[in-house]
Amino acid sequence: MTRTVGLCLGDRHGIGPEIVATLLSRTDVVDGRAPVLVVGDVTVLEAGANVAGVSLEVVETPEPAVPSGTRWALLNRPHDAPAATGQASEAAGREVLARLADLSDLAIAGSIAGIVYAPLNKSALRMAGHEAGDELAYLVGRMKPTSVFGEINILDGLWTSRVTSHVPIRNVADLLTTPAIVDAIRLIAAALKAAGRSNPRIAVAALNPHAGEGGAFGREEIDVIEPAVALAAAEGLHVVGPFPADTVFPRAMREGFDGIVTMFHDQGQIALKILGLGRGVTMLAGLPVPIATPGHGTAYDIAGKGIANGEGLSAAFRLVADMVRNKKG
Amino acid sequence: MTRTVGLCLGDRHGIGPEIVATLLSRTDVVDGRAPVLVVGDVTVLEAGANVAGVSLEVVETPEPAVPSGTRWALLNRPHDAPAATGQASEAAGREVLARLADLSDLAIAGSIAGIVYAPLNKSALRMAGHEAGDELAYLVGRMKPTSVFGEINILDGLWTSRVTSHVPIRNVADLLTTPAIVDAIRLIAAALKAAGRSNPRIAVAALNPHAGEGGAFGREEIDVIEPAVALAAAEGLHVVGPFPADTVFPRAMREGFDGIVTMFHDQGQIALKILGLGRGVTMLAGLPVPIATPGHGTAYDIAGKGIANGEGLSAAFRLVADMVRNKKG
Repeated sequence: MTRTVGLCLGDRHGIGPEIVATLLSRTDVVDGRAPVLVVGDVTVLEAGANVAGVSLEVVETPEPAVPSGTRWALLNRPHDAPAATGQASEAAGREVLARLADLSDLAIAGSIAGIVYAPLNKSALRMAGHEAGDELAYLVGRMKPTSVFGEINILDGLWTSRVTSHVPIRNVADLLTTPAIVDAIRLIAAALKAAGRSNPRIAVAALNPHAGEGGAFGREEIDVIEPAVALAAAEGLHVVGPFPADTVFPRAMREGFDGIVTMFHDQGQIALKILGLGRGVTMLAGLPVPIATPGHGTAYDIAGKGIANGEGLSAAFRLVADMVRNKKG
Repeated sequence: MTRTVGLCLGDRHGIGPEIVATLLSRTDVVDGRAPVLVVGDVTVLEAGANVAGVSLEVVETPEPAVPSGTRWALLNRPHDAPAATGQASEAAGREVLARLADLSDLAIAGSIAGIVYAPLNKSALRMAGHEAGDELAYLVGRMKPTSVFGEINILDGLWTSRVTSHVPIRNVADLLTTPAIVDAIRLIAAALKAAGRSNPRIAVAALNPHAGEGGAFGREEIDVIEPAVALAAAEGLHVVGPFPADTVFPRAMREGFDGIVTMFHDQGQIALKILGLGRGVTMLAGLPVPIATPGHGTAYDIAGKGIANGEGLSAAFRLVADMVRNKKG
């Protein structure tokens, strides 16, 4: 069974190519963890290395395999695109979709056991014809998972999933159902276990201010969330809550929880972006292989300046490589 | 015109009495700022001083005035209550309501020019018959302000107000109206000016994830919030937004904004509790005198142990005293 991790450059006009080049040059991150198969345009990777000020010895491989004796290799996929304009473009969006397609095909074929991608831009994906604008939807469409899937945000060992995501706040309360919350708890528990935490401790956020104060400001805690926590606990999961959304992060950090399940996008994102803008990782969980990307975006405004921080990409790579190594088989 | 600040002990079974005693002993905070009129039970204050390990020379005054030559004085208001049980009680709630009533009467009569209160417990207020359980509602009922009023949260110089507060998330979108948002912007701008910031810069948060992404996940940004920002800006206020709720705090801190207007309770509270649990201040703005309290609660679990942190109360006192001194007249 392969342990190779597939890696693509993200949006070529963002900071992706330079932080990928930096990652490949960091022997402390890459060595001994997993062979890396980079899938992308060799000229873009080389330009990224120039910007980052690192020297890369590019080994091109015609086959989707890393030759033995090398830490990483490139499957060259040339792609025409105009020069950067500091914003999203259709051409760069098309390239990202093509590389995500390559990586999902390689994963399904068993050539790679995990996927890491540098930042992409959702508007560019839409310009390129992927209406949902969302890489999770795109990969789900190609990989057709049979189990629950979803996005998990990871910062310094604290994992966060959400029951609803890119939907209007107006619709959140109606979208929260006990089965959907149980699924979100199961998803994060399974992903934590796959990352080597054998009995993860999970806290669940409430929906309403002060967790509704006993029904005074909303009844979803009583009617929907508490039953979900009870069901998940009955399955043997270590799960508690619901806790008010404004105290669940301080509590989880203080008490050493492994994961938090939030009810909507900004409950987690507000906390995570304050705690570690740039350092976080986004994981797409529930797909056939582990998939992760930095939590930050393309940062078009600083691309090409050699000042991008590659910490998030390193963390995404370490996570996927470690999950691949943890896998039984 | 008096510059005296009125101060009460909060819930006698919480950490209020001990942090008030500590504050009164801190000459660096109290001296030169404002005379302080403490309104409360002398035995409770003395017990608080014992717990805090500070020695207080209590000057009791029969009149609601601080005798010249003293920094603070006590208007003794004995009140019977059973011993602490580590939780909210009807007796302590009744005492808090009575002291808030005293302080609002003194403010209306012109004997004090600002109010600071130590932490109280909303359940205790409800047990004591104040159904709303909310000190802002109670003080509004007594002081009958003629202008817009609301709660403002303050942390390290960054002020945050909200358009909706203790309501179910289900109802938030319908409660957001352009006039309500303009009022919230005006409220925080006026309070910042009263605190001496002559031309405050204010950022407004969006409602939906990613600020709705151009209407894809909700239209309130376009239909309701943007028009409010435009109206407030047309009045000469320095206001920008709406910005996604998960980036507005990092942006405001990075760019040195004075205030943030949020759309609902947890947008601000998640951020503030991560940034400074214990250090923040809650201000009740728009009432006839400035009113503030620490952002934290009664902390029944650590009351009486002498380990409570009085930073939030000191910050609340400094804020009110400085606003009183800034006042024209």
